[in-house]
Amino acid sequence: MDKLEKIVSLCKRRGFIYPSFDIYGGLAGFYDYGPLGLALKNNIKQLWWKQFVSTRSDMFGIDSALVTKKEVLRASGHARGFADMLIECKKCKRRFRADHLEDKKKCSVCGGVLGEARQFYMMLETHIGALEDEASLAYLRPETAQGIFTNFKNIIDSFHPILPFGIAQIGKAFRNEIAPRDFLFRLREIEQMEVEYFIRPNAWHKAFEMWKQEILKFIRTVGIDEQNISQLEIAEENRAHYSQRTVDFEFDFPFGRKELYGLAYRADYDLKNHMDASGVDLRYHHGEESEPFIPHTIEPSLGVERTVLAVLLSAYTEDDPPAGGGEEKRVMLKLNPKIAPVKIAVFPLLANKPDLITKAKEVYKILQPTTYNLQAPIAWDDNGNIGKRYRRQDEIGTPWCVTIDFQTLDDNTVTIRDRDTGSQTRHSVAELDRYFSDMLLLL
Amino acid sequence: MDKLEKIVSLCKRRGFIYPSFDIYGGLAGFYDYGPLGLALKNNIKQLWWKQFVSTRSDMFGIDSALVTKKEVLRASGHARGFADMLIECKKCKRRFRADHLEDKKKCSVCGGVLGEARQFYMMLETHIGALEDEASLAYLRPETAQGIFTNFKNIIDSFHPILPFGIAQIGKAFRNEIAPRDFLFRLREIEQMEVEYFIRPNAWHKAFEMWKQEILKFIRTVGIDEQNISQLEIAEENRAHYSQRTVDFEFDFPFGRKELYGLAYRADYDLKNHMDASGVDLRYHHGEESEPFIPHTIEPSLGVERTVLAVLLSAYTEDDPPAGGGEEKRVMLKLNPKIAPVKIAVFPLLANKPDLITKAKEVYKILQPTTYNLQAPIAWDDNGNIGKRYRRQDEIGTPWCVTIDFQTLDDNTVTIRDRDTGSQTRHSVAELDRYFSDMLLLL
Repeated sequence: MDKLEKIVSLCKRRGFIYPSFDIYGGLAGFYDYGPLGLALKNNIKQLWWKQFVSTRSDMFGIDSALVTKKEVLRASGHARGFADMLIECKKCKRRFRADHLEDKKKCSVCGGVLGEARQFYMMLETHIGALEDEASLAYLRPETAQGIFTNFKNIIDSFHPILPFGIAQIGKAFRNEIAPRDFLFRLREIEQMEVEYFIRPNAWHKAFEMWKQEILKFIRTVGIDEQNISQLEIAEENRAHYSQRTVDFEFDFPFGRKELYGLAYRADYDLKNHMDASGVDLRYHHGEESEPFIPHTIEPSLGVERTVLAVLLSAYTEDDPPAGGGEEKRVMLKLNPKIAPVKIAVFPLLANKPDLITKAKEVYKILQPTTYNLQAPIAWDDNGNIGKRYRRQDEIGTPWCVTIDFQTLDDNTVTIRDRDTGSQTRHSVAELDRYFSDMLLLL
Repeated sequence: MDKLEKIVSLCKRRGFIYPSFDIYGGLAGFYDYGPLGLALKNNIKQLWWKQFVSTRSDMFGIDSALVTKKEVLRASGHARGFADMLIECKKCKRRFRADHLEDKKKCSVCGGVLGEARQFYMMLETHIGALEDEASLAYLRPETAQGIFTNFKNIIDSFHPILPFGIAQIGKAFRNEIAPRDFLFRLREIEQMEVEYFIRPNAWHKAFEMWKQEILKFIRTVGIDEQNISQLEIAEENRAHYSQRTVDFEFDFPFGRKELYGLAYRADYDLKNHMDASGVDLRYHHGEESEPFIPHTIEPSLGVERTVLAVLLSAYTEDDPPAGGGEEKRVMLKLNPKIAPVKIAVFPLLANKPDLITKAKEVYKILQPTTYNLQAPIAWDDNGNIGKRYRRQDEIGTPWCVTIDFQTLDDNTVTIRDRDTGSQTRHSVAELDRYFSDMLLLL
């Protein structure tokens, strides 16, 4: 098994990520989050929100509808431009993205003859109302960005912000991908973390550079291996229709160097188009000293699922077995404790000693308020020998294991075992709450 | 204006909730959350998650796909059963729900003749892949519940839980409502907070009662006026197709007494149907002492938007103007501080005194770590006289306002003004962090 297969297997076995509808054979391009994956994802989203929104004084968070009025995506150019060129095999009927095909004549699967390239619209469509007609047509949004632009005037009217300021959103987006693949990399239903940062036109270089640095900071904080990151300046002919400059942050996935995040200078493309199409004034008015104008936009766009995948690939480690730790390789997720789904595991050394169980439950209970306030779940495990329990926690990335042993009954101390170093240190039960509060606050 | 109209207006003006795509004339049944609405909503979701999931040891949280494979919703009965009877006016073509019509012959709008009632499917449809055909048909889920049932086996395999246990999910759901109305009450895109609680069949009475109490506790905690809540036992002929017992928790909305939350005993309906349709064994196996069996299910189902609406209606208050507070009525949202979008506002008494501004910024900065750790945003306002600033904060439900005045420069104390009582007390700046930490932790 290669590393990606190992991660897919670990994710399913341990309750991180499951193929959607797998009892019905699955559906390509859709995955569900299990309890650990959901905690990991939520921690990542919180980390992003904290860095990009809540610790800044120039950001406004919103949450807009997923089903999108067709006029919005016509004005934004998506209903025309958001399409892939597609080639169908005349024999097996498989479809391929034209830009992914090396041999443009023969099907790489069955060897059949390929047809002409044709446009394939990548938005999912639906119908609102009683009739399925043109009037009722709506789209599932292909990006969260348009929900931000359509709320630009609302934010101006409610909060009167002064440029530069940003509007941020985390939410689902949908793409009718022709060939979903590579686990969480190319999906049909994704979650995005996006900012549209509104600026005066002459300030775009500075804002672009500022967001570039913020993205790099996030990559470091979330625990993505920086060694595997490269920045790619996208040439004009390859940029999306709305962009005047784009830098892709690429990650070296096992299946190649691919886009992880994007940073785009959208100029006044979106607000201008929405102003023209809706007839509503979307210019920025500030006092009487200047003419109203349409702000320009810098967009840092990060995908949740690609972040989860890059984080898992960066964290996945196989160690030689530690001394006395058996013969199997030790599998670890060296997750940043900030985003680890379980922060602390509590073990009674032996499961058949009522004294140990009672004491361990007491410790478990003491640690609960600590972890609630920090949104940090705590696990209990009394199953099997202690070495196996360490391994189970290593595999899901739990930073600290607390073991209650016979010495605990004598002197009220426990061992805290560190995931990455394997070192064990003794601590008084009375100081545990403070110890972990400090550890978690320091992160 | 009636109370609902006042709330709709406040929500738009102050940045809680905006009609979606309003620069394009809106789309019936869709609303977007502005910064304050998003904070309020997230606080409500966190409160629910804490009570229903993270402080319990028998719950597993998941997050499943919104786009749903058609086989799932055929097995669950939604693709047949999830429909309304609909009557169209032959003259004006308006459509009405048959169960909402009093006069079954004449259109209440134009007086035209009404047609026959016919089934109208309430699920939104889409197509996955290159062709729009039966094979590519998929649905936007009408409830989060089916994503839980299809993950039942995954949770069993990853976590080996012992009955009773529950699986919980917060997420979007979609309904092609014929007549969206009453602000957040009847929408086409909603968010649900659902638990499927799996039990031995003979344990259903007890579990039903337990969840009834949990729902009542949540109603109290989130700040919904209990005086306006009533429980309605749903008669068999009115229950959903899957339910053997349903209790609706109704709320006295301005537009009538309507369903707020539902609690249903779904028996083994869902797991049995998915087992039959998928051919995958969904029985619960526990040791050798008993035969495998299909667990039964109790479902407490709470809508996020209806919660937001009931909370706003419960919190909205108009007071006579306080002594010396001008002549206008004071509008307040008496939100539980736990869910208030802004916890603390910091004011320099006068905006044109640099000393006051500097000191107030210092206080603002001191309070930031307090509020970050507690996910409690803090606001700054130096605009207009202090009475107006209090009113602005009252209107969005901010529990505490901290004012930096000339005495602060002398003795390093500030006033803390309480939203509900209007009382002002002086506190040392040095103790502010502790004061608010305690206040917020005690909530």
